[in-house]
Amino acid sequence: MDKSRVTTYLSLNQVAVNDLFWSPFMERVRTKVLPYQWKALNDKVPGAEPSYCIRNFKLAAELTHPELDYGVPRDIGFGGMVFQDSDLAKWIEAAAYSLAWHPDRDLEQTLDETIDIICNAQQEDGYLNTCYIINGLEKRFTNLKDHHELYCMGHFIEAAAAYYEAAGKRKLLDAMIRYVDCVDAHIGAEEEKLHGYPGHEIAEMALIRLYAITRDEKHLKLAKYFIDQRGQPPLYFEEETRRNGNAFYWQDSYIKYQYYQAGKPVREQTAAEGHAVRAAYLYSGMADAARLTGDQELLGVCKALYANITKKQMYITGAIGQSAYGEAFSYDYDLPNDTVYAETCAAIALAFFARRMASIEPRAEYTDVVEKTLFNSIISGMALDGESFFYVNPLEALPQASLKDRRMGHVKIERQKWFGCACCPPNLARIIASLGAYVHSANADAVYTHLYLGSEARFSLAGGNLKIKIETRYPWEGQVDISLVPERKTAFTYGLRIPSWCGSFSLKLNGSDAAYTLRDGYALLNREWQEGDKLRLSLDMPVNLMETNPHVRDNQGKAALMRGPLVYCLEEKDNGTELFKLHTGTPHEFKVNYEKELLEGVCVISFTGKREKDWQDDALYRSRAEKEYEDRELKFIPYYAWANRGGGEMRVWINR
Amino acid sequence: MDKSRVTTYLSLNQVAVNDLFWSPFMERVRTKVLPYQWKALNDKVPGAEPSYCIRNFKLAAELTHPELDYGVPRDIGFGGMVFQDSDLAKWIEAAAYSLAWHPDRDLEQTLDETIDIICNAQQEDGYLNTCYIINGLEKRFTNLKDHHELYCMGHFIEAAAAYYEAAGKRKLLDAMIRYVDCVDAHIGAEEEKLHGYPGHEIAEMALIRLYAITRDEKHLKLAKYFIDQRGQPPLYFEEETRRNGNAFYWQDSYIKYQYYQAGKPVREQTAAEGHAVRAAYLYSGMADAARLTGDQELLGVCKALYANITKKQMYITGAIGQSAYGEAFSYDYDLPNDTVYAETCAAIALAFFARRMASIEPRAEYTDVVEKTLFNSIISGMALDGESFFYVNPLEALPQASLKDRRMGHVKIERQKWFGCACCPPNLARIIASLGAYVHSANADAVYTHLYLGSEARFSLAGGNLKIKIETRYPWEGQVDISLVPERKTAFTYGLRIPSWCGSFSLKLNGSDAAYTLRDGYALLNREWQEGDKLRLSLDMPVNLMETNPHVRDNQGKAALMRGPLVYCLEEKDNGTELFKLHTGTPHEFKVNYEKELLEGVCVISFTGKREKDWQDDALYRSRAEKEYEDRELKFIPYYAWANRGGGEMRVWINR
Repeated sequence: MDKSRVTTYLSLNQVAVNDLFWSPFMERVRTKVLPYQWKALNDKVPGAEPSYCIRNFKLAAELTHPELDYGVPRDIGFGGMVFQDSDLAKWIEAAAYSLAWHPDRDLEQTLDETIDIICNAQQEDGYLNTCYIINGLEKRFTNLKDHHELYCMGHFIEAAAAYYEAAGKRKLLDAMIRYVDCVDAHIGAEEEKLHGYPGHEIAEMALIRLYAITRDEKHLKLAKYFIDQRGQPPLYFEEETRRNGNAFYWQDSYIKYQYYQAGKPVREQTAAEGHAVRAAYLYSGMADAARLTGDQELLGVCKALYANITKKQMYITGAIGQSAYGEAFSYDYDLPNDTVYAETCAAIALAFFARRMASIEPRAEYTDVVEKTLFNSIISGMALDGESFFYVNPLEALPQASLKDRRMGHVKIERQKWFGCACCPPNLARIIASLGAYVHSANADAVYTHLYLGSEARFSLAGGNLKIKIETRYPWEGQVDISLVPERKTAFTYGLRIPSWCGSFSLKLNGSDAAYTLRDGYALLNREWQEGDKLRLSLDMPVNLMETNPHVRDNQGKAALMRGPLVYCLEEKDNGTELFKLHTGTPHEFKVNYEKELLEGVCVISFTGKREKDWQDDALYRSRAEKEYEDRELKFIPYYAWANRGGGEMRVWINR
Repeated sequence: MDKSRVTTYLSLNQVAVNDLFWSPFMERVRTKVLPYQWKALNDKVPGAEPSYCIRNFKLAAELTHPELDYGVPRDIGFGGMVFQDSDLAKWIEAAAYSLAWHPDRDLEQTLDETIDIICNAQQEDGYLNTCYIINGLEKRFTNLKDHHELYCMGHFIEAAAAYYEAAGKRKLLDAMIRYVDCVDAHIGAEEEKLHGYPGHEIAEMALIRLYAITRDEKHLKLAKYFIDQRGQPPLYFEEETRRNGNAFYWQDSYIKYQYYQAGKPVREQTAAEGHAVRAAYLYSGMADAARLTGDQELLGVCKALYANITKKQMYITGAIGQSAYGEAFSYDYDLPNDTVYAETCAAIALAFFARRMASIEPRAEYTDVVEKTLFNSIISGMALDGESFFYVNPLEALPQASLKDRRMGHVKIERQKWFGCACCPPNLARIIASLGAYVHSANADAVYTHLYLGSEARFSLAGGNLKIKIETRYPWEGQVDISLVPERKTAFTYGLRIPSWCGSFSLKLNGSDAAYTLRDGYALLNREWQEGDKLRLSLDMPVNLMETNPHVRDNQGKAALMRGPLVYCLEEKDNGTELFKLHTGTPHEFKVNYEKELLEGVCVISFTGKREKDWQDDALYRSRAEKEYEDRELKFIPYYAWANRGGGEMRVWINR
């Protein structure tokens, strides 16, 4: 590992986003998703299944401190899923991020009051999971495989760190440190401890985030233990099952262990497998651990897994987890468009993983994927009004099939208000609310800009304070204007990502061609910077007709449209039904038109393609004849914006 | 209905088959399938799940006649599925057919002894279903929807009729007449009766077959009641559910009623729906009823349903039931090749339906489908050694997908020894054993030959006895030699089917061009026939590259090979893996070669196609470039013979 290449992302407090494209999403999260979710957590959404989440914490607090009275009957029991606590954690995390860029005294007060309740539920020894506090503590840590105690802990650590970073308040952080102490007393390498690890990962990366704040080696050590103990023989989940009788959900399936990424030790794994969100959370934690410890072998594993995902198991939208069976990876080059799972959370998890890899080494192959997921498979999960959501993000939607074909029952044609298992909406909230932390990273000698968001960053380099201002209409236009304002003349390397979709670009410094070197997809300018330096990066942004590696069965003979980072799609609304009859042909001209009123403002692409003509008769089969086509104007919209104008067919991959 | 066009098929006793292609299948059924199945019915297959079928009958007989002792403990209970009785019925039916063309004293004795046991289980009032006799008669007729009493009755009527026709013995037939009396006393239009009908159809056509023997109007009336009561409001299955608490298996599904073809009265149905075997059995019974009663409206419904199936929901192999969800029809033009259900039994049921339509009116559109199913989707269900079977007959097989993709878990790559729900193997046995009855049909003025099987038929016309001898190497060669030997000079119309796959043919009578008229796909010769008349039908049998109506999403841009009635496929064994990379191109020459040693003797087709080249790099996506291909010799085998040389990929529809 080349430590000089390792950088740290600027924090949310250091980057103010003001972006044509992203700010409306961030505002929707702040003004719609977070308040709606808060109501949901408090069982106040009329007609929706109750979350029980806040009620669980109040009840756990009352049981822990009998003198407290939140008005929850003490015999009412735990409500919701075993991982219900995590919904509150995700909300706190997202709310904390929003405070970083939009101070809100009322929200902060709500957070403080909520954290008081949470802390009141905490046990003397630090334990804090309402499911077991309510149902019986004697059972805790007996089903690490499926009962999500460590998963909830991970999410609460993320929440605590976020709130600490945003507001400087450590009450929840301190509570989490005590919870980690408790877990550490029960789980670990020592003989008397349980040799377990989380069934659903996230604690790995959360503990490393905690370590970055506390610098307490115990936190790093526990993260490393979770990573390296995973999949070691004799398999802990088997032992636990023998001891406590927890059946394997996938008992007779090929994913019995792989579902948990526990089929073998992680250092022996070469292909992404099992539940996609779990997998990418694990890999994110592994990348964090490799970065912090300089563990070259672990980094190699991360690189192999990253290559497997992005070169063999990732949709063009950045979506992963191609199979509804186990919400999981399946096998190399299996990328069905219609029966896909492609959970919103999984795309978010891949963005986490890719962002971490990019902080180890600035390579466009990592940041490209961060960008690809953000602009396509992540925000496709939320309606443009911020009020309904997709779990599953198909690349082809067929209303009849979703109704009548079991293979596609999970593929919804219209976004849903909320979910019983409400993982995706709050996960969307937390990544969109923290986008500022995806723009730049830096170390002592270098600053890299990874994503082109309109923003103003202020932070310290070795040479003093630096401000970087970005102005752009990205992704609709390829021009990016960057002002660098160092406190004083300072020499450092400034790297700008050149996205892989861009075949040609120009880079001007103060009006003249800039001198740069290209390395791993970044244009590097190594010079002395001073106030008034202005860069203009002009990325050619033609429409690109894409094709898929021939190993992929499902995209044989098909093409997809991209422009910049955006994948495009056809919708029935614009192109009629039976989209599978349409062909791109060999277009000689693409019309790109920004339609301000359409879908909150999008660039639409249109061109003259072809549509296969219907046969004269109603035969189902016939001897092959020359195919007949008619010209047809095809209108494409950005994929993320589909299903915002009612249900209907949608298709990303079009016949050539 | 033009009654002069209605014909009756010759019976098995009238047609001796001696056919290059089919006789080995019939022998396999006789010498392998029937003995194996007999062992299975008697729980004597080592390692296999017991059938319990014979045991159930013995136990029921002991309970009915306590003086009997078959050695079955009386407290042992009913074993197997609620429809287990039908397995024995199907075996008896197939065994009876085999007796018609291969007398076998031992087999006949086994049948007689078995029928004795069956009849000993019959109740005083005629009732005969071991599940209820063993579990409690007070519950009988309380779950017509799902408990298959009437289904088992239907199969036993078929068995009884077959054995009566083959051996002239009526013991089982009389027992069935008494069972029908019992059912008739409980179910029917009269106010005091149950206004129900079978959840799984077959009784309709069975009762009409019984009526053809007994001429007892009661039998026809009950069949008509079952047909016309189906789907009438208030829905009987709902009433039954309210009364007896039988939940709907598909409670919240769009196929809740459609699964049973009970969403509306049958005369209002226009599209095939629900469980495919049930549907086609029902339609077969409807066609029988329309033929016998001249019910023009009902015939119109049959024609509409037939057109819906064959023009919108049928695979090129004749397979139907495209969806594993409910083993059912799904919607028009939905014909996935890889996730298909296409149960062997459903193809058999479609053959039944088409054969019945052809007997109402000799039209090649009906007989073509009989032939298509027989040569493709029916016999694909059995290994060439007669020892293993497919339930599901995919048009594309992918070993990894069958293992790892839930959508394809039901698609097996290798045939299985036997099934817990053993419907397909005995169904195969009964249709193959009765093939002789598919060759000719006749009425007072006309004889039609529908299928070209090497055979000798002897039967009576108005003008006296007639012998028809067919000699052919069909389907490997298109020449069919037919000798007509009337007892004396007789004038009648002789119709020969011209298959729809045949673009050009010649017909010689005694060496000269025959004078014929073409009607509905039959060449009609109306003349006076005499001994020594010889017809030579020469059907051109080129290789045909087929394509699918553009409404079918899954076959866009693909072609399939047919030659004669046979659909062909590529197997991994001959063509390597990743068959989806292969393209037909525009072949300029097909090589057709009969390989005697291969797959019990098949015509193999080969030609120079193309294979898409792998990319130079490992990118998953790239800007569209000119595709590169290499020439590749493609070798196709008949579809029915796939999966006889180990597992591997298979594909019918190839990229163009």
